[in-house]
Amino acid sequence: MIKKNLLTPGPTPVPSEVLLSMAKPTIHHRTPEFQKIFKEMNENLKYVFQTKNDVFTFASSGTGAMEAAVVNLLSPGDTAICVQAGKFGERWTELCQAYGIKTVVIDVEWGDAVDPVQIEKALKENKNVKVVFTTHCETSTGALTDIKAIAGITKDKNVVLVTDAISSLGGIDLQMDSWGIDVIVAGSQKGLMIPPGLAFCSISPKAWKLVEAAKCPRYYFDLRLAKKALEKTDTAFTSAVTLCIGLNAALKMIKEETLEKIFQRHNCLARAVREAMKALGLKLYAKKPADVVTSVYVPDGVDGEALVKTMRDVYGVSIAGGQDELKGKIFRFAQLGYMNEFDIITGLSALELVLAKMGYKFETGKGVGAAEKEFLK
Amino acid sequence: MIKKNLLTPGPTPVPSEVLLSMAKPTIHHRTPEFQKIFKEMNENLKYVFQTKNDVFTFASSGTGAMEAAVVNLLSPGDTAICVQAGKFGERWTELCQAYGIKTVVIDVEWGDAVDPVQIEKALKENKNVKVVFTTHCETSTGALTDIKAIAGITKDKNVVLVTDAISSLGGIDLQMDSWGIDVIVAGSQKGLMIPPGLAFCSISPKAWKLVEAAKCPRYYFDLRLAKKALEKTDTAFTSAVTLCIGLNAALKMIKEETLEKIFQRHNCLARAVREAMKALGLKLYAKKPADVVTSVYVPDGVDGEALVKTMRDVYGVSIAGGQDELKGKIFRFAQLGYMNEFDIITGLSALELVLAKMGYKFETGKGVGAAEKEFLK
Repeated sequence: MIKKNLLTPGPTPVPSEVLLSMAKPTIHHRTPEFQKIFKEMNENLKYVFQTKNDVFTFASSGTGAMEAAVVNLLSPGDTAICVQAGKFGERWTELCQAYGIKTVVIDVEWGDAVDPVQIEKALKENKNVKVVFTTHCETSTGALTDIKAIAGITKDKNVVLVTDAISSLGGIDLQMDSWGIDVIVAGSQKGLMIPPGLAFCSISPKAWKLVEAAKCPRYYFDLRLAKKALEKTDTAFTSAVTLCIGLNAALKMIKEETLEKIFQRHNCLARAVREAMKALGLKLYAKKPADVVTSVYVPDGVDGEALVKTMRDVYGVSIAGGQDELKGKIFRFAQLGYMNEFDIITGLSALELVLAKMGYKFETGKGVGAAEKEFLK
Repeated sequence: MIKKNLLTPGPTPVPSEVLLSMAKPTIHHRTPEFQKIFKEMNENLKYVFQTKNDVFTFASSGTGAMEAAVVNLLSPGDTAICVQAGKFGERWTELCQAYGIKTVVIDVEWGDAVDPVQIEKALKENKNVKVVFTTHCETSTGALTDIKAIAGITKDKNVVLVTDAISSLGGIDLQMDSWGIDVIVAGSQKGLMIPPGLAFCSISPKAWKLVEAAKCPRYYFDLRLAKKALEKTDTAFTSAVTLCIGLNAALKMIKEETLEKIFQRHNCLARAVREAMKALGLKLYAKKPADVVTSVYVPDGVDGEALVKTMRDVYGVSIAGGQDELKGKIFRFAQLGYMNEFDIITGLSALELVLAKMGYKFETGKGVGAAEKEFLK
């Protein structure tokens, strides 16, 4: 018997209540029954996005909502700043390039986060920049960007700030309206605790002006069609009804716990994981670690890919390895979504068992003990 | 107690076995466990598409796969033929226009299907046409297009035939390889018996040549990225894992029943519905009705929207009304996906009850009786 524990930075565990809500007989998307759910869901999404703006829902992965942000804000030949501090920052650049947007790339060393001053400087040097694309938590490195400080720079300028919060929304504080973020994109399979398949894009009145002027070709991700549909409590194209029903159930749980407590919980779990890693003699990878995922250097003499594989295949505990240039060099241990102290303890214990089997020298229980110490604070 | 029956042309009923397969704890998409399911799913999709070509899966509604066909085959300024015989044919034209494709529109009266000769003529008159966009079953009217005859015209020409089979795949015979169809797009919530949220695009080697030359901007729906990922048993962006798991379960049911028997079942149910409508004195709307949905004129003196609403709210039986210009003028009764004789009988009986209450004159049981007669053949 292998009991499974999902400690990856997405997909994350889905509460049974939510899974079962999606197992009810399918309903039609253009009925009062679904519209009631969809309306509630949209209101509760606003709560999580901390905004009064509309939140648009697409049947797609998170990348779809990133594409929506690019094609709805810009025209071919426009200029945008793309902050690249990992795989998902690079995606902004790739998306812009696919649509003929000129990019001013701010290359940040992986594991680090952009210094807001760099963005201020780039804006001064490039007066024609219309949009700044950023990543709140760079899932590939586990580093957190100071979006509040960046919004402080952009909010009074004639420039729109877009943040990929796919892995951070519902895990780390991100105040769309009060910080002055113009566009936030997110996905379903992270802090929102449902399976992958939905993506979200919330957009401020300031950013909406660009939507009306943007000339990038678009159809499926056209926010003008999405807005027209939302006014009639609908999506432009068939809603992924079961995922919306699951999301509505998950959002109710989130609202009940409150964002404040959810952020505290993630912070507490993250501190515990970080202290545990240090207690095991391991080195953290991200310079400013995000509270949703902890990236850790694979110690010398240990095969990083085998470590992840053994934890999964022998103990049923899934963590993530490094991606692209970080393959085999780091592992990523998530504290994201539907997780509590004992999910973390299970993950740490499995890590200890596998590290021990792989010949890494440490005192067993040290990591778990350090985590417990944090929980007791 | 209102027991619900979904007789709409999508979403269609999802078997409990499939719903429950999706209610299992979420797994990560980049694991051997998911890859095994994904591989099986892809093989079984080929069976349903009746093809040796790759079938690409997107997390999106069916419209996403339509967009994939447009942006991956064409460049701005190219010319395409769009057959418009209803709302979904119009979508091809809208998509082409959004991406700067010149369109030769063949306008067909709603309820009718294009005469293949019209396509032959349009191709002769427009030598520069690269792609012909068609709709197998036009869901808004219930009319079936003779794709086999059209493929007979296009297959030896330097033109690519694309068919929207969103509402027909897995319900009506459509032989991609042996008829010579170049691209088929489909959706999950119809004949494939799972909830909305997945879309598919299968593409022939002949069409693939256009993919490499196409200059429409694209990213999320880029088939080149999809192909590279599929070679590694993956999708370019996070798979909608639960929907894929559900699809795999549904495809196994389809393979077990066999396509041959599924097409017979749909044909039998469709004949029963058509005979029932005639026995009730109602007039069929589509000139060449498809076996997956029967469109029927609302009789004089009956409020079409109230008819659909009453069936749903009082008896729990959902059928679809008319869309756009057909609103209130027709209703659409589906025989699509996970349905048997008694789903049809239930639907017909509810229709009789509501028609009787609305003052329409007929002999109760006449429709049900005519359907039974067909079942006995």
